[in-house]
Amino acid sequence: MNEKATTSRPADLLPEPTLRRLPWYLAYLSTLRNAAVEYISTTRIAEALDVDPSQIAKDLSFLGIRGKTRIGYQVDALEQALRDYLGFDRRHNAIMMGVGSLGAALIADSGLHRYGLNIVAGADINPALTGTTIGGVEIYNPADTERLVRDLDIKIGIIAVPVESAQEVADQLAAAGIKAIWNFTPSRIRVPEGVVISNTSIYSHLAVMYNRLSTLSEPRQ
Amino acid sequence: MNEKATTSRPADLLPEPTLRRLPWYLAYLSTLRNAAVEYISTTRIAEALDVDPSQIAKDLSFLGIRGKTRIGYQVDALEQALRDYLGFDRRHNAIMMGVGSLGAALIADSGLHRYGLNIVAGADINPALTGTTIGGVEIYNPADTERLVRDLDIKIGIIAVPVESAQEVADQLAAAGIKAIWNFTPSRIRVPEGVVISNTSIYSHLAVMYNRLSTLSEPRQ
Repeated sequence: MNEKATTSRPADLLPEPTLRRLPWYLAYLSTLRNAAVEYISTTRIAEALDVDPSQIAKDLSFLGIRGKTRIGYQVDALEQALRDYLGFDRRHNAIMMGVGSLGAALIADSGLHRYGLNIVAGADINPALTGTTIGGVEIYNPADTERLVRDLDIKIGIIAVPVESAQEVADQLAAAGIKAIWNFTPSRIRVPEGVVISNTSIYSHLAVMYNRLSTLSEPRQ
Repeated sequence: MNEKATTSRPADLLPEPTLRRLPWYLAYLSTLRNAAVEYISTTRIAEALDVDPSQIAKDLSFLGIRGKTRIGYQVDALEQALRDYLGFDRRHNAIMMGVGSLGAALIADSGLHRYGLNIVAGADINPALTGTTIGGVEIYNPADTERLVRDLDIKIGIIAVPVESAQEVADQLAAAGIKAIWNFTPSRIRVPEGVVISNTSIYSHLAVMYNRLSTLSEPRQ
């Protein structure tokens, strides 16, 4: 549940497991293109990614893409179709709420930009940060959020504030007209109906990893 | 599947959904402690986090923690028990493979350190980076990985290299004796039996969020 993006609107949605697999295919296709591979079969994608071949064919058919018998998919064309479908080539304007170490780090991560996330503003309650820039992105007072969302056509709010403030900031973003919230805090936040919420709980991943590690080295009862 | 930490050793493992919920409880308890709340009931945790109360009681019973009838749990004690159990107060030495924008950002994120991740070295194929430091962490040539893992007692390897190199770096980490790999690339990587793998696919979350956003604004067929 923790990792899902949910909205109360159920219609016309691609199944989330499919959406999560499409970026794997894309990553693998980029590797193939770099290696100058021209065509790829479902079977070979399946072997490389440990996904059932019929599942891959089904996932790609959601995009209206079908491979050719015995030839498979053309690597360049499939890569571009996936990028188009996933929206990675479009710009999605976002505001970063909280520019402490994680927020500043995410602004600096050019990878997000390559995947279509266009962080156009930051906000932080630390008044010393107002008017400064991080990686070319200006930092504002959080009181300016509503104006920024309107003026800069911002659809996505990213939350990287301390866990105690996460819900309050989410409420502020929703009130400002944000359409989707990407929550990087370990807090479970609630959003009004119609606002998409996606949780990336980095620390949950650490919890799972530590537990598995401790089980490897010193089995629990 | 994408978000799971898996290992081939099945015994003695806390269920992963439970492990993923424990950090939510911890985050909520931190908020309560900040608000000077002394006791909390399962019912109130359940309301705040939108989790079934019986599920919460069951999750906490895995840790040997039971609330008192009508009083509930003592906030401080439960918070500390969760931190202990989750290993967030212990140091877990890690090496960052790839210190481009994401890798450098993760090294700079003090949040990871607060949750017990102790990044003691970085490695990058860019020779200009060898011998430099990022946030006090020295950057080495990847050829030094095996020696670093041994000398610095490193158990966790974090992969933040370009997607094309992810598998190669994972192989290198496994050969160097790493026990767990935290993969931040969108690539599906394979690891030998007994090595824990955890995938944090930031870009998959973007894919889901963009799709849900597009469905809100312009319904697909």
